[in-house]
Amino acid sequence: MTINKVTADTDTGAMLQQRFRETRRRTEWLCRHLETEDFVVQPVVDVSPPKWHLGHTTWFFETFVLMSHQPGYRLFHEDFSFVFNSYYEHAGKRVLRTDRGNLSRPTVAEVFRYRAYVDEGMEQLLSGQSLPTEVATLIELGIHHEEQHQELLAADIKYILGNNPLFPAIAVLSQSVEAKEEKPDGPEWISVPEGVYEIGFAGNGFCFDNELNRHKVYLGAYQLCNALVTNGEFLEFIAADGYGHFAHWLSDGWGWVKANNIQAPAYWHKVEGQWHYYTFNGLESVAPDAPLCHISFYEADAFARWRGRRLPTEAEWEAAAGKFNWGRRWEWTNSAYLPYPGFAAAPGAVGEYNGKFMINQMVLRGASDATPPGHSRPSYRNFYPPWMRLAFAGVRLAE
Amino acid sequence: MTINKVTADTDTGAMLQQRFRETRRRTEWLCRHLETEDFVVQPVVDVSPPKWHLGHTTWFFETFVLMSHQPGYRLFHEDFSFVFNSYYEHAGKRVLRTDRGNLSRPTVAEVFRYRAYVDEGMEQLLSGQSLPTEVATLIELGIHHEEQHQELLAADIKYILGNNPLFPAIAVLSQSVEAKEEKPDGPEWISVPEGVYEIGFAGNGFCFDNELNRHKVYLGAYQLCNALVTNGEFLEFIAADGYGHFAHWLSDGWGWVKANNIQAPAYWHKVEGQWHYYTFNGLESVAPDAPLCHISFYEADAFARWRGRRLPTEAEWEAAAGKFNWGRRWEWTNSAYLPYPGFAAAPGAVGEYNGKFMINQMVLRGASDATPPGHSRPSYRNFYPPWMRLAFAGVRLAE
Amino acid sequence: MTINKVTADTDTGAMLQQRFRETRRRTEWLCRHLETEDFVVQPVVDVSPPKWHLGHTTWFFETFVLMSHQPGYRLFHEDFSFVFNSYYEHAGKRVLRTDRGNLSRPTVAEVFRYRAYVDEGMEQLLSGQSLPTEVATLIELGIHHEEQHQELLAADIKYILGNNPLFPAIAVLSQSVEAKEEKPDGPEWISVPEGVYEIGFAGNGFCFDNELNRHKVYLGAYQLCNALVTNGEFLEFIAADGYGHFAHWLSDGWGWVKANNIQAPAYWHKVEGQWHYYTFNGLESVAPDAPLCHISFYEADAFARWRGRRLPTEAEWEAAAGKFNWGRRWEWTNSAYLPYPGFAAAPGAVGEYNGKFMINQMVLRGASDATPPGHSRPSYRNFYPPWMRLAFAGVRLAE
Amino acid sequence: MTINKVTADTDTGAMLQQRFRETRRRTEWLCRHLETEDFVVQPVVDVSPPKWHLGHTTWFFETFVLMSHQPGYRLFHEDFSFVFNSYYEHAGKRVLRTDRGNLSRPTVAEVFRYRAYVDEGMEQLLSGQSLPTEVATLIELGIHHEEQHQELLAADIKYILGNNPLFPAIAVLSQSVEAKEEKPDGPEWISVPEGVYEIGFAGNGFCFDNELNRHKVYLGAYQLCNALVTNGEFLEFIAADGYGHFAHWLSDGWGWVKANNIQAPAYWHKVEGQWHYYTFNGLESVAPDAPLCHISFYEADAFARWRGRRLPTEAEWEAAAGKFNWGRRWEWTNSAYLPYPGFAAAPGAVGEYNGKFMINQMVLRGASDATPPGHSRPSYRNFYPPWMRLAFAGVRLAE
Repeated sequence: MTINKVTADTDTGAMLQQRFRETRRRTEWLCRHLETEDFVVQPVVDVSPPKWHLGHTTWFFETFVLMSHQPGYRLFHEDFSFVFNSYYEHAGKRVLRTDRGNLSRPTVAEVFRYRAYVDEGMEQLLSGQSLPTEVATLIELGIHHEEQHQELLAADIKYILGNNPLFPAIAVLSQSVEAKEEKPDGPEWISVPEGVYEIGFAGNGFCFDNELNRHKVYLGAYQLCNALVTNGEFLEFIAADGYGHFAHWLSDGWGWVKANNIQAPAYWHKVEGQWHYYTFNGLESVAPDAPLCHISFYEADAFARWRGRRLPTEAEWEAAAGKFNWGRRWEWTNSAYLPYPGFAAAPGAVGEYNGKFMINQMVLRGASDATPPGHSRPSYRNFYPPWMRLAFAGVRLAE
Repeated sequence: MTINKVTADTDTGAMLQQRFRETRRRTEWLCRHLETEDFVVQPVVDVSPPKWHLGHTTWFFETFVLMSHQPGYRLFHEDFSFVFNSYYEHAGKRVLRTDRGNLSRPTVAEVFRYRAYVDEGMEQLLSGQSLPTEVATLIELGIHHEEQHQELLAADIKYILGNNPLFPAIAVLSQSVEAKEEKPDGPEWISVPEGVYEIGFAGNGFCFDNELNRHKVYLGAYQLCNALVTNGEFLEFIAADGYGHFAHWLSDGWGWVKANNIQAPAYWHKVEGQWHYYTFNGLESVAPDAPLCHISFYEADAFARWRGRRLPTEAEWEAAAGKFNWGRRWEWTNSAYLPYPGFAAAPGAVGEYNGKFMINQMVLRGASDATPPGHSRPSYRNFYPPWMRLAFAGVRLAE
Repeated sequence: MTINKVTADTDTGAMLQQRFRETRRRTEWLCRHLETEDFVVQPVVDVSPPKWHLGHTTWFFETFVLMSHQPGYRLFHEDFSFVFNSYYEHAGKRVLRTDRGNLSRPTVAEVFRYRAYVDEGMEQLLSGQSLPTEVATLIELGIHHEEQHQELLAADIKYILGNNPLFPAIAVLSQSVEAKEEKPDGPEWISVPEGVYEIGFAGNGFCFDNELNRHKVYLGAYQLCNALVTNGEFLEFIAADGYGHFAHWLSDGWGWVKANNIQAPAYWHKVEGQWHYYTFNGLESVAPDAPLCHISFYEADAFARWRGRRLPTEAEWEAAAGKFNWGRRWEWTNSAYLPYPGFAAAPGAVGEYNGKFMINQMVLRGASDATPPGHSRPSYRNFYPPWMRLAFAGVRLAE
Repeated sequence: MTINKVTADTDTGAMLQQRFRETRRRTEWLCRHLETEDFVVQPVVDVSPPKWHLGHTTWFFETFVLMSHQPGYRLFHEDFSFVFNSYYEHAGKRVLRTDRGNLSRPTVAEVFRYRAYVDEGMEQLLSGQSLPTEVATLIELGIHHEEQHQELLAADIKYILGNNPLFPAIAVLSQSVEAKEEKPDGPEWISVPEGVYEIGFAGNGFCFDNELNRHKVYLGAYQLCNALVTNGEFLEFIAADGYGHFAHWLSDGWGWVKANNIQAPAYWHKVEGQWHYYTFNGLESVAPDAPLCHISFYEADAFARWRGRRLPTEAEWEAAAGKFNWGRRWEWTNSAYLPYPGFAAAPGAVGEYNGKFMINQMVLRGASDATPPGHSRPSYRNFYPPWMRLAFAGVRLAE
């Protein structure tokens, strides 16, 4: 991947070292209350065991930084590249994704030793003089990669515990922000005039390759709501039997609803006639003023149609991103995840980072309660298949 | 669906009657050499038995035109709406798509009687005075609907016979144009300058709802090749082991290649070391100068990447459509099938025509050797999932 | 397979020729009212298209008799051995069973021509002097093989038409005996004393290899009912929610009921509150005094347990077969299909006839309304997996 | 289940208490070297996580003994009956078997606390005076149930670690007996004369309900080999491409070989041209004189056919069991698992113990290196589906 060249120059080695340490520390902090058993399981193929996230983010630094740029570095364990590779075909045969949850070994303790070992190697590299730009760029990428996994880790822990019949409460985020209510001052519609806008990353600092090539787009006039859709609004959709009427749904979405018998957002359960949901605090009553979360694109789209609105495109979102608050939910857009004009993947394994996923996925914009601090910007492009509900994703309406 | 209002006004009843007759006749002409058995089978879920196409296009006129607008009309058979509905949820329970090939009854002869019965009803309606615009509009839609099915019918017949171990030759199209070689005068690159272009249907005449709302798009400068990719060029990709190197492929495409052991376009077979393919003439040597056909989006995209080019977007294609010859292959674009600004489905069953498929599909532009005469225009949007190879689809490169 | 050696000696060539003609004629007679389309479809993997039965029984004579024993015989079509082989691994690559219904070619007319061609070759062989015993033995086997397929053909036609939403009535058997009511004079229990009995084929004439090796078995005292279970008795089981209580069911049977939402025997439909079933006469009210039909082993077993009885073993059945009337329903036994002592398959392809299926199947004894005349005897062993409901199978209780 | 009535009378309370303690202790002893992570995973549906075995055997005592027969007993945790029920439909909704490996909670520590809590309750009951026969019978059953799970536990641990790419060595059994070589003095054939034999449990002591009803069977003369088939003998089968020739295989077995690409017994790996296998000592060279292990019925049957022999029936095995040494491998027989004459399941949940599995399974006789001491007898009937390779199963030939 071609990350923004300016990045590595402005970050001095010391700043990079500081950010490396903080990022590595925060990953482990997210797991601070997990039991050993919680690190191991993989209830569905799209969830990875926490110990895998811990190992994989470490493997990234070992493989792409230490192995190539730290002379004399010795692998912690030669089988780990097999165990902790995710999808980098360049880097050799990988454990099938469905097999991750079958592996009791390496143990959690061993994975933490692996982290410490690689951290030590990285410290030596970062403490050295004159870090080449190319290496700094890779480390920068590794930090952002690990930040991405922090959000996935939070989502996967939630799935693991939220699908356990005992519904354990566990502090993952510093407070259970995900369910926090927030009365908007009154939703308002932001008008954006017709015109040519510029989209894509601008300025200094890091960005992923999929944000590069700032370019012009023509947008007709449109309106965006300044508030996210709330649970209360979605309860109205459920009450109106929104899940039962095909006319609100895309054809594939309707098939998905029927095949999976979907009746509410993920983690919602009806207990004695009242809707509850699993949060990191355990099972709670659904908070009507909290922003809706854990819905698929299909549900976001159906809800918008039922309300007589629509989802924004990613260009509409980005062009207006300075005019409203965002950051509590990733926001589904009606844009497919496709390359920007002039997009080209970098040669080698890091080139597999983003580009090869540009099919069969929809773009989400913004950030969420689980996004690490500093890991968001208006040009950031997140993406998921339209049926995925693991992410802390919600809805902002457009028209 | 909101078809272009102007349409019905300019088509007089007599013209509509003439077009109705020609369209109905052409559908049956495509089947003129089929054996009774060929009308019945459904080798894969995406193929429909020819007798189903014959019945379904008839059912469309019966249900949406005669039932609603011909007083005193009596259904040919009350179970047929159950048998021949495709995906119109509004119109009642339908036969599951996978079950179509299990139905030996109604017989082919009975389906032809059904066609004759409905045609008679339609003739009465069309011969009457003062056809209301609303009805003319529905008939117009029914004609275009049947034209679409003519192309599907040709593709499905090809699949049924091309996957039979006896590889029967059968004249479906007037000549087996699909394999016709055509030496381009020398491929040339057409340059299109940066700017704001208008996209979408313009002018009088019929169009589908998904083409409506002509709107502006901003395009950077780009180039399109005036020639389609040929079989010979694709043979080079195969010879270079293009199917064996993940780096050319989107991640989902690579998974598709592996899971299905894809080694060549659909209908290709290696016979004694030479590539052959099934055409309506039977099994033939692959013609190197004929345009490539029956490839998936994944293959089109991988080929383009291998060649250091890319697929055009649908806007790029349409903006330049006046500058090159097209019409032999539907051309895969790198645009997802999504609504144009301001798109809205019509109320009722005809509103299910296009909009609800706007997810998980890629757009194809142009037309093919199997497209009925007159059933194409620069704004026409065809669409398929990225793995589909039934269509007469090929590749035009961009950069 | 080692068929009884005596057989071929006693059947003179003329008798064999006569039986060959009658058998071939009867197969076509069963199809006399089919539409061309009915010959083609394969609604589920366990059903074969009628034209496949017609071709396969012919292929058997062509491959095992004419090819090997008729000098100068020329194949009708060299691809037919590929198309019409069923499961004889010795005889080369076969069409996957699930693909049979995808083949519109060869056409039905061509298959009948194939039959006529092979019949002619057989007539020449049968009219010649001095048919070697080995050849007569193979012809005898081919006749019995075709008789077996006659019963399968009737069952498959029933499935094809009985699962068509139009429920066509069609005369397959000479009268729709399958639904015929038959008031037993009053069910009686036949007592059989403890002792050593002989089981297996005895005497002259043909038998299949799986019946050979008559041997002793020790049986404790037992009782068999002289009457088959009727539809009326099974309606009581349904009314008592027999399908809803796990305690009546084997574990696999209960899983099968849940997974397939089984609520009645195959072909039963509740129409306006009344149970109907599809017979060759079309959809009819369930006849309470007709013997129960089209149930799986699981249902037979659950019904018996609910009634406080059990199914007989195959040895119990055979030891008492002279003491009651049988022949309207194949009767599920509680014996797994396993080799008799000393069983050995013949070398070569005919050795694949029976032995290799001796796992995961249960034995049925008797015969049915669809069994060809003369194609039954007390030692005959039919077999099916426990979930299969295609056969004309019913229940006789033991205790 | 109707366990042998005599049992409970002869076991005094003290003896039962002693045996209860030893059994409970041995289960935990088998896990003594497991890491916490090893208790959690479920790599395939047929394997249960070790912590589930620990909990389930405990749940059995809690549910069937303490809840019903210990006045004032309080459940350890009300959700545990949901989590640890296996297949007892009487005892309420159970966790789907495929979900067991998704549960990180209850933790391993909590499961051990559950064991301690129930053990304490049991101690009180067992220390009391005058244990009613009915309760003693249930405890006896619980002990044998837990012993059965000890063998499953060993097999499941082997699967979990043997399918981990790190192949960890772990002492589960007291020595890795499973790979121990044992040169037989020279295999000899034991001749058994024709006659009526008695089969089924006889005498005092415990047996399962499926062994009851000792009854006569008539057996023709037969021979059994006094030695188990060795790895070395099976290597000859592999070398002769036994897995590549359909003629050795039952039809279902051949399908299983092809569908799963089977090329050797479970746990075998070819490393640098030499066959190795995973044992509790890690990956080792295959010991040629050790008895063959971890093969399916299909492989046992194919091997026997290739050798020109056959598998014994369970009656043949039992009638001769006094004449040879057995106990290192469960031995596949060619008998389907079916009820003995007069078999009847007990009312209520314990009646679900054995009878409802009497379909689609084959009987194994003997015992294995992993069978708990004292948990075997000549009449013991083990059973598995024919494709299962988890068990410590081997082959003894008959003819």
